[in-house]
Amino acid sequence: MNTPESLTFSIPPVSRELEAELRQKIDTRTKPPGSLGQLEAVALRLGLILRTCEPVLHKPTMVVFAGDHGIAAAGQVNAFPQAVTAQMVLNFLSGGAAINVFCRQHGIALTVVDAGVKYDFGNCDGLVHAKIAPGTRNYLEEPAMRPEECSAALAAGADLVRGIAAGGSNVIGFGEMGIGNTSSAALLMCCLTGLPLEDCVGSGTGLDDAGIARKTEILRQALARHPAVTSPTEILATFGGYELAMITGGMLAAAEAGMVIMVDGFIATASLLAARKMYPAVLDYCLFMHMSEEKGHRAMLEYLQAEPLLSLGMRLGEGSGAAVGYPLLVSATTFLNDMASFASAGVSDKE
Amino acid sequence: MNTPESLTFSIPPVSRELEAELRQKIDTRTKPPGSLGQLEAVALRLGLILRTCEPVLHKPTMVVFAGDHGIAAAGQVNAFPQAVTAQMVLNFLSGGAAINVFCRQHGIALTVVDAGVKYDFGNCDGLVHAKIAPGTRNYLEEPAMRPEECSAALAAGADLVRGIAAGGSNVIGFGEMGIGNTSSAALLMCCLTGLPLEDCVGSGTGLDDAGIARKTEILRQALARHPAVTSPTEILATFGGYELAMITGGMLAAAEAGMVIMVDGFIATASLLAARKMYPAVLDYCLFMHMSEEKGHRAMLEYLQAEPLLSLGMRLGEGSGAAVGYPLLVSATTFLNDMASFASAGVSDKE
Repeated sequence: MNTPESLTFSIPPVSRELEAELRQKIDTRTKPPGSLGQLEAVALRLGLILRTCEPVLHKPTMVVFAGDHGIAAAGQVNAFPQAVTAQMVLNFLSGGAAINVFCRQHGIALTVVDAGVKYDFGNCDGLVHAKIAPGTRNYLEEPAMRPEECSAALAAGADLVRGIAAGGSNVIGFGEMGIGNTSSAALLMCCLTGLPLEDCVGSGTGLDDAGIARKTEILRQALARHPAVTSPTEILATFGGYELAMITGGMLAAAEAGMVIMVDGFIATASLLAARKMYPAVLDYCLFMHMSEEKGHRAMLEYLQAEPLLSLGMRLGEGSGAAVGYPLLVSATTFLNDMASFASAGVSDKE
Repeated sequence: MNTPESLTFSIPPVSRELEAELRQKIDTRTKPPGSLGQLEAVALRLGLILRTCEPVLHKPTMVVFAGDHGIAAAGQVNAFPQAVTAQMVLNFLSGGAAINVFCRQHGIALTVVDAGVKYDFGNCDGLVHAKIAPGTRNYLEEPAMRPEECSAALAAGADLVRGIAAGGSNVIGFGEMGIGNTSSAALLMCCLTGLPLEDCVGSGTGLDDAGIARKTEILRQALARHPAVTSPTEILATFGGYELAMITGGMLAAAEAGMVIMVDGFIATASLLAARKMYPAVLDYCLFMHMSEEKGHRAMLEYLQAEPLLSLGMRLGEGSGAAVGYPLLVSATTFLNDMASFASAGVSDKE
C-alpha cells in the first residue's frame, strides 16, 4: 500500500509561454476590449492550461465520491440521518439526483465512487467500488483514518483520475456525498488556513443557529483532542473523510495530467486546500465554478484569491455548481475560437 | 400608423394559482430544501409564467435590434465610430460576433433587425428590414424621434415578437447594437427612475474618466433642452433610439403572449424601464440574466429589485449575458422535471 511519502506527483506551474498570444487573440475578437469580463479570464486560463490558442474541452467528466463519517452516527453535527449517504448513492446510480440531471443536460460523463460508505452495495452496477472502509472513525475519539487508509484513498482518487485522463478527458469536476462531511471540511479549513473555527462552520444540509453552535462546540473538542497535527496528510487522515482524500488525490492527478479542474463546493475546496499545501502549483489548473451558500466557502475562496464564476446561493454539493457552470467554460472557448477578428470582419477598432 | 395611445397590450399579472404546488414539488426533490438557491426561484418563476408544474422552454430566441443615434455622429459620447453599428450588423449576419457563437452553442435562434441603422443594407439576406429611419435625430437639437416614428418602432418590435410567439417560442431575449446607445439608455434611466444623471452614465464601449465626464455634461445639456418630457412614450421618443423602442414594444408583446423574457444589458433594461412604466405587470414575465459592468446597470437592477443570475463583468450588449446564462434556465426546468422525489428515490428526509 502507498504511504503518503510515496504519493508523489509532478505538477509544474502552468507555462506562461502563450500568454501574450492568447491576450492578443482575445483582444482582437469583434468586441470592445475586456467586454466579455470573466469569460476572457477563463479563455486565457484554459489556453494556458491546455497549452494552445485554440482550446477545446473534451469529454467533460464529473466524479462524485461518497463516504461516511464516524462523527455523523451520533447525529450531533448533521441535519440528515447517516443512511442518506447510501440512499443518495443509489439515487445517483438511478439517475434521479441533481448532479445526474445537470450532467445529462451538458453531456458531462458522471462517475460515482464508493470511497467509504457505511453500506454494502454488493456488486451493484455502475458504481466504482473503491471502499477503503465502511465509514471513518469518530475523530472525537481517534483519527478518522489510519495513515495507510488515507494514503490508499489519495492513491485511489489519483488512479481513477489518471484513467479518466487516459480516456481523453481534459476537464474534470469533483463532487461528493457524505452526511457529516461539512464538519470534516470545516476542520480541514481551520487547520489549513489558520482561520478561526467559527468562521469555518456553517449549516451544512440545514442546521439552525443552535445546531451550528452545537456543531462548532463538538468540532472544537475534536481540534483539542488532536493538538499536534500539522502536515496536510496528517490533517486529512485525522479529520478528513475517504471522499475528501480521494478528491485531493484526484485533483493532484488531474493537475499532473494537465487537465482543467472545475473546483466547486465547500468540501471539494477543502480537499483542494490540502492538495495545494502539498503542491502549490495545483491551483494553476483550477477554475472556481460557484461560491457556495455554505458559510465557510466565501472565506475559503478569499483565502485562495479565487473569483468564482457563479454565485447562485447553491449549497448542495455533488459538484452541482460545476455542472451548471460548465457551459460558461465552453462559452469561453467558443468566443476565442469562433468569433471573427476586427480585421477579418471589417469592423473598425476603437477610435 | 399607430400612435402611442393605440399601442395597447393586455398584460395581466402572472397568476399565483400554481405557486403552492410548484413550491411543494421543488421542496420534495432529493436535495436539502433551498439548496439549489436561485435555480429554485427560477424554477418557480418559469412555472408561474408558463402556467405549469412541468415547464419546458421551447425555441429559445434572441432578437438583436440595431439602430444609429444622431448624438453619435459628433463622436463626443462614444468610443467607437458610428460606422461600427452597420459593420457589426454585417458581422452578426456572417456569424462572427459574440452573440452568434453563444446562440449557436445553446441552440438559440438569432434574429437580427435593422431598426434604424444609418446604412443601406440593400436586400441583404438574413436581416429583418424594419428600418424606421437611417438613425435618430440629435436630441441636443430636437427629439430623437417624431411621435409617429416612436410608435412605429414600438409596433414593429411588438409585431416581430408576436410572430416569434406564434412560431412556438416561449422564451426570448433582447439584444442591441447601436453606437451611442448607452447615452440614450442613461437618459431613459434618469427620466424613468429619477436617479441622478451621474449615476446613470458609464463608459459604454470604453470611455475613460475624462470621456465619461464629457458624456455626462453633454447628456445634462440634452435633459435641459427637453424639460417637459414626462410620459414613457415621450421619453422614448425624445431620448431613445429605434432599437430601444422596438425592444420596449417587443417586451410588451412577449409578456402579452405569456413568454419568458430574458432581460440582459444596460440598454435593454432601459427599454424595460419604459415598458414597465406603461404596463407594470411586464416585470412578472422577466428573468434578469446578468448584471452588466456598465455603471448604471447595478442601480437599475436595484431599482427594479431584480436579482441577476450572472455577474461576470460583461458589458458587450448584443444579449450576450442572456445567451450565456440561458442554460441556467434549462437547469431550473430539468431539476424540477427530471429529479427524483424523496419518496420515489427512497431517500430519508431531514430528521
